[in-house]
Amino acid sequence: MNKIYNPDKAEWSTVLKRPTQTVADIEQTVEAIFKEVQSNGDETLKKYTEKFDGVVLENFVVSKDEIEEASTLVSQELKDAIQLAKNNIEVFHKAQKTSKVLVETAKGVQCWQEKRPIQKVGLYIPGGTAPLFSTILMLAVPATIAGCEELVLCSPPNKEGKINPAILYTANLCGVKKIFKVGGIQAIASMTFGTESIPEVYKIFGPGNQFVTVAKQIATKYGISIDMPAGPSELLVLADDSANAAFVASDLLSQAEHGVDSQVILVSTSKDMIDAVEKEVEKQLLELPRKDIAEKAIANSKLIYVADDQTANDLINAYGPEHYIVCVENEDFFVNNIKNAGSVFIGNYTPESAGDYASGTNHTLPTNGYAKQYSGVNLDSFMKSMTFQKINETGIKEIGAAIEIMAEAEGLYAHKNAVTLRLNSLKNE
Amino acid sequence: MNKIYNPDKAEWSTVLKRPTQTVADIEQTVEAIFKEVQSNGDETLKKYTEKFDGVVLENFVVSKDEIEEASTLVSQELKDAIQLAKNNIEVFHKAQKTSKVLVETAKGVQCWQEKRPIQKVGLYIPGGTAPLFSTILMLAVPATIAGCEELVLCSPPNKEGKINPAILYTANLCGVKKIFKVGGIQAIASMTFGTESIPEVYKIFGPGNQFVTVAKQIATKYGISIDMPAGPSELLVLADDSANAAFVASDLLSQAEHGVDSQVILVSTSKDMIDAVEKEVEKQLLELPRKDIAEKAIANSKLIYVADDQTANDLINAYGPEHYIVCVENEDFFVNNIKNAGSVFIGNYTPESAGDYASGTNHTLPTNGYAKQYSGVNLDSFMKSMTFQKINETGIKEIGAAIEIMAEAEGLYAHKNAVTLRLNSLKNE
Repeated sequence: MNKIYNPDKAEWSTVLKRPTQTVADIEQTVEAIFKEVQSNGDETLKKYTEKFDGVVLENFVVSKDEIEEASTLVSQELKDAIQLAKNNIEVFHKAQKTSKVLVETAKGVQCWQEKRPIQKVGLYIPGGTAPLFSTILMLAVPATIAGCEELVLCSPPNKEGKINPAILYTANLCGVKKIFKVGGIQAIASMTFGTESIPEVYKIFGPGNQFVTVAKQIATKYGISIDMPAGPSELLVLADDSANAAFVASDLLSQAEHGVDSQVILVSTSKDMIDAVEKEVEKQLLELPRKDIAEKAIANSKLIYVADDQTANDLINAYGPEHYIVCVENEDFFVNNIKNAGSVFIGNYTPESAGDYASGTNHTLPTNGYAKQYSGVNLDSFMKSMTFQKINETGIKEIGAAIEIMAEAEGLYAHKNAVTLRLNSLKNE
Repeated sequence: MNKIYNPDKAEWSTVLKRPTQTVADIEQTVEAIFKEVQSNGDETLKKYTEKFDGVVLENFVVSKDEIEEASTLVSQELKDAIQLAKNNIEVFHKAQKTSKVLVETAKGVQCWQEKRPIQKVGLYIPGGTAPLFSTILMLAVPATIAGCEELVLCSPPNKEGKINPAILYTANLCGVKKIFKVGGIQAIASMTFGTESIPEVYKIFGPGNQFVTVAKQIATKYGISIDMPAGPSELLVLADDSANAAFVASDLLSQAEHGVDSQVILVSTSKDMIDAVEKEVEKQLLELPRKDIAEKAIANSKLIYVADDQTANDLINAYGPEHYIVCVENEDFFVNNIKNAGSVFIGNYTPESAGDYASGTNHTLPTNGYAKQYSGVNLDSFMKSMTFQKINETGIKEIGAAIEIMAEAEGLYAHKNAVTLRLNSLKNE
């Protein structure tokens, strides 16, 4: 672990630098597969499923039988845990519903804002070693509350042509009716254009590797929107002497086990706490099954000592962490003054893994500093805001002259005329 | 104008097709200028300002003197109109403020959502024939209500090295302190990377030509977010025999004068209304200063007759218009059932130009069918939603076991351990 004491403000951007991603290199590959899927649909899916997933599939649809089989393979204990998490996620995301905002801005001028669901959304769930069924909860639950009409889920098959039972069980529990065994670039391209099997959607959500990340970026060029750009997961813990070093170390490691490129940072105004956490990390690391991954991420991690709270807060805002744990006595100062973070975890009994799974908040969060401008996934991510207005005779008399003057000043005379005609018709009455 | 009667559902996508944009062709030009601005900053701005705007500038900053001069050049009448519009826009966007959403999802598990401002935002205002000072109101007013700390405005200089007075007056009125005489691709690149003169921002808003549109898309590859992808402006009017054909024609023309690629569509269940609007358009067209532009857009416009309200509504949702005027007796049916539209204008006295300028709603709206998944600009466009959670000893006992089981099922043992350590510490108490 790299210990850094009182870094100069001029060095912050170097100290806080994230690893560079080499997105440009794979753009051409992604564009080529997109074009192929657009032209040849399912044929292309078969080809790349064989090439990348090592299995020949005649049919990409997950059948009812497969879903029933999956349900028998998931333990009751896990089903209960998923249900508890689902309940909490539902409660938190239902509370985010907003009502119509209606204002009479001038006499006779009624304006309102309403949110309506995005009709068709696509959820991408990666395969690989960790079957991320928890991500289905985080996406399908708010999509359903929002009222999205069509949920399409794609996840890559394993070499036996199957999807992990926990993924199928959770998708079915959340009411996802259209589940397809397609992964990677070809899955994102399918949801972008639609194929014989797979419906096109308007917005695509979900995590993935570098190829999926670039594919989602390319999808936006074809008019699809996405949840947010992705990057390696990251955690910043702020701890003072009131924190528990063992707890802090366990949180840093839970981030580190995600991948060798995970970002792990500790900021503290206590040198003792930094040393204590370092020892605890070394101790706990030995016990982890994913030790090899975590070890590499930890080697790149940073323990940063700063002299005072204000500097700590400025440094953290300059970084904009995806996950931010606040374990300090003066927690109100930091909670009130954090400007850039995906999700904030407060106090000794609030591990990041609570938000990853079961507290109710969403775990799809902006990484890579994107917390400066992107929201984490929330209910509004599945809706769009529309405005409405209704102006009566009184209203157009109130604001008509202003519209005429402004339209003329912008040189848009037909805009002016649309008002003039209406005002004249009222003079003649 | 093209009249289309009862198009078959299978033909809708052809009938409603928007003109293709050739974005790919200019990507390389844009990428090259981005790289140059990133490396050489202001030097590059000077070069391209001379090349594209035809003026040599030593300093891009708009001075206090220039702003004072601009104020003397704007008529009191226009100042009053701008003030009226600003007031209405403020009222409507202030009403969109949301309060903290706080929920105890389980005993001892407090979760909340708060919105915090994006610290640095960039506003791009095009130059050219129409000085879009109204767009400054639509962007700077909500940015200020949101609490954005730094507003940067870029607009291209004319051949005398000046910016239109109405633009400078409005920017100053809205409290924009950093105004720069830079346009086009180089302006978007400057706000993406920052130069010696121009600060980098986190999110870029505003309209522009094809080059600006592509530049904003490229900016997203460098971690900047944008308001939304752009396309030619468009209007769909739904009218039955209760509508006023002259008013409808004036609205269609106010859209048509924007540009030759503007999209203008009338949908009606009345053949008489279609014929009447056609005649009115021909008549009003003759009087317009921007007749040449409007004429070309009108030549591509479509008057679509459909047999019944349900079909009309389905067709309109398939299109997803940016602006949607509803002038029918049965207006509630259409207002309640519109799923995809940027902004909806209801009744005979609600011209689109009301929303363009002064009613209070925002005129930065999704075109090109993006209303299916993008919101128009609103207060939330200048903020990001963050989540917070605080779990106490009781709370971690409530949900800890579920987290452990789920983390284990996803193969993430360090995630599990972060909870196990905390639960164990409570057992020992």
